[in-house]
Amino acid sequence: MSTTQTNKIEIIKASTSKIKDVDFDNLHFGDVFTDHLFECDFKNGEWQKPIIKPYAPFLMDPSSKVFHYGQAIFEGMKAYKDDNNDIWLFRPDENFKRFNNSATRMAMPEVPEEIFMEGLKQLLQLDEAWVQKGNGSSMYIRPFMIATGAGVMANPSDEYKFMILLSPAKAYYSGEVKVLIAEHFSRAANGGIGAAKAAGNYAAQFYPTNLANKEGFQQVIWTDDATHTKLEEAGTMNVFFRINNTLLTAPTSERILDGITRKSLIEMAKSEGINVDVRPVLVSELVEAAKNGSLKEIFGAGTAAVVSVIKGFSYQDVYYEMTPIENSYASQLKEKLTNLQNKISEDAFGWTVKV
Amino acid sequence: MSTTQTNKIEIIKASTSKIKDVDFDNLHFGDVFTDHLFECDFKNGEWQKPIIKPYAPFLMDPSSKVFHYGQAIFEGMKAYKDDNNDIWLFRPDENFKRFNNSATRMAMPEVPEEIFMEGLKQLLQLDEAWVQKGNGSSMYIRPFMIATGAGVMANPSDEYKFMILLSPAKAYYSGEVKVLIAEHFSRAANGGIGAAKAAGNYAAQFYPTNLANKEGFQQVIWTDDATHTKLEEAGTMNVFFRINNTLLTAPTSERILDGITRKSLIEMAKSEGINVDVRPVLVSELVEAAKNGSLKEIFGAGTAAVVSVIKGFSYQDVYYEMTPIENSYASQLKEKLTNLQNKISEDAFGWTVKV
Ligand SMILES: Cc1ncc(COP(=O)(O)O)c(C=O)c1O
Ligand SMILES: Cc1ncc(COP(=O)(O)O)c(C=O)c1O
Repeated sequence: MSTTQTNKIEIIKASTSKIKDVDFDNLHFGDVFTDHLFECDFKNGEWQKPIIKPYAPFLMDPSSKVFHYGQAIFEGMKAYKDDNNDIWLFRPDENFKRFNNSATRMAMPEVPEEIFMEGLKQLLQLDEAWVQKGNGSSMYIRPFMIATGAGVMANPSDEYKFMILLSPAKAYYSGEVKVLIAEHFSRAANGGIGAAKAAGNYAAQFYPTNLANKEGFQQVIWTDDATHTKLEEAGTMNVFFRINNTLLTAPTSERILDGITRKSLIEMAKSEGINVDVRPVLVSELVEAAKNGSLKEIFGAGTAAVVSVIKGFSYQDVYYEMTPIENSYASQLKEKLTNLQNKISEDAFGWTVKV
Repeated sequence: MSTTQTNKIEIIKASTSKIKDVDFDNLHFGDVFTDHLFECDFKNGEWQKPIIKPYAPFLMDPSSKVFHYGQAIFEGMKAYKDDNNDIWLFRPDENFKRFNNSATRMAMPEVPEEIFMEGLKQLLQLDEAWVQKGNGSSMYIRPFMIATGAGVMANPSDEYKFMILLSPAKAYYSGEVKVLIAEHFSRAANGGIGAAKAAGNYAAQFYPTNLANKEGFQQVIWTDDATHTKLEEAGTMNVFFRINNTLLTAPTSERILDGITRKSLIEMAKSEGINVDVRPVLVSELVEAAKNGSLKEIFGAGTAAVVSVIKGFSYQDVYYEMTPIENSYASQLKEKLTNLQNKISEDAFGWTVKV
């Protein structure tokens, strides 16, 4: 890893702010960006001088490797503003580590910690007016890296661009989520890149997800590609199943993203005295539990959606609808987590980091 | 599919040509591009007016879906100039069909045939001075499509760019190719996107290929991800094995690219009276055949490398070196194929198409 004096991030300020055009009460996820972005190029084996500058399109060569061979990774994280107008990050060290794990798997250079962390902190400070307070508001943060080297030889690029974008977000309301359990399609191979936040993993899911949408399901729950018997995760969420009073979720593996919401919920649930069992969860047990009434809840967990209740699932053309329950684990855990993230409750875990 | 009057491709010519700066005798694969490129945008549910214009970088929004979710596909084809200065394509209809199959799998719009075909023909005509004659020279053609829509919501883009680039190529000399048989990593999942020419499939292979390179192997032969017992394909080539006088190659599947060189060689070999067996080929048979001396040849087949002889393979830390043979199937088939493509011999299969 090369070192760079990031206390020297060059800052070019936008001449005017777009903030007055933004309707913060009616935000859609991911289509409004703040006035600035952070950028750092990798060239000649080294990270170059980082810069914060006005958000704007940039020039790419048509033969750039990202277009042809898909070297592209990203992270998704959130910042929250508390009542004192302080801005907080949630476990940013976990995103940083995962980003560099993804980089390694995609044969891309690691980003030095001071570039990643200083970049996002200074960017948040500059655009701090965009970070809204209260009521589920947050700033979605999108660090990403793409291969910018030119040439269509199928090998790793020698030039990259690391960027951070900020997009203000409201409490994510995904509507009623019904899911389809994958019987044919899959998102990850053994020995593949499923555990990396690699761009290509997501495009691969769009077609099967479109098919599910047409049948009235908003998401697919992926199963292992070899046997389709084990429940793995959803598009951008890990999944939890409550059978009687035990919370089940699949162990992470090469095929499953090691979600930060997932691992936080596991710790929180345990500290609440909930019995958590991290082990392969079979489709057959789920169906069985749905039939005999022991299946109490299903929910997804991820940065964007936080905790998303799943209302029912379909498997082999049979739809199993969940019976809504009081005091669900989903609602308890969601409240605990968001209160901690928003600094409404105390952070007993030491997960929040001040910007 | 929308229709467009592509006889009306707008053409903006470069003011000067870069051709005089190109050393055609010392070309590296894929790093020199001709003066022009073809471009057509998809917007508002329709393909827009196609254009041929000077090769140049273009503007992309930092939140473009291709950067974040990897919607990107491509094709690889070649054009050849014969002694009458006519330019010929090899089975372009196959590339066109495969391109749209890839598009469907990646939830991208199909490209209309007249845009794809007229685009590449008119581009080749405009840059025809760049298409060199003889001695293994060809023009490598790279049609590709990327998602240009802005926004970081994980769903398909509603805007795309289809482009064609041209890169002059010499006979591809890959050096001595030793391969490693994959025991842990893999390139494709059952129910995944291995059969699509999706950008993300290639980046996924770079890291394991780098590891193989470090051990002295140029390529990896991928095996099925569930059991690692079946031989599938290499990075950008399908693979053939000759055991005694039978030529073996894996059947295409969801995990394997349906290579045009592969299917052409199968037909040619059959018409030569060679016994071809398309069936799953086990790693264990390969090892067994290498040990008992019945393994005569291994070679890869693909547009870029044409036919590439594999000198030896490693499996479970044992290296098996091939004994070079006279009149190999690889050399016979390569000669037949390249003579047909270059219009040196007659095209009994009807595979060549004049530009
Ligand atoms: C495939 C996938 N699984 C799970 C998650 C949840 O991870 P996290 O809780 O770290 O956001 C994500 C991402 O956001 C994801 O992309
Ligand atoms: C993964 C893969 N396999 C095989 C091939 C060979 O296909 P073709 O002969 O059509 O070039 C290619 C591409 O060029 C490829 O990318």
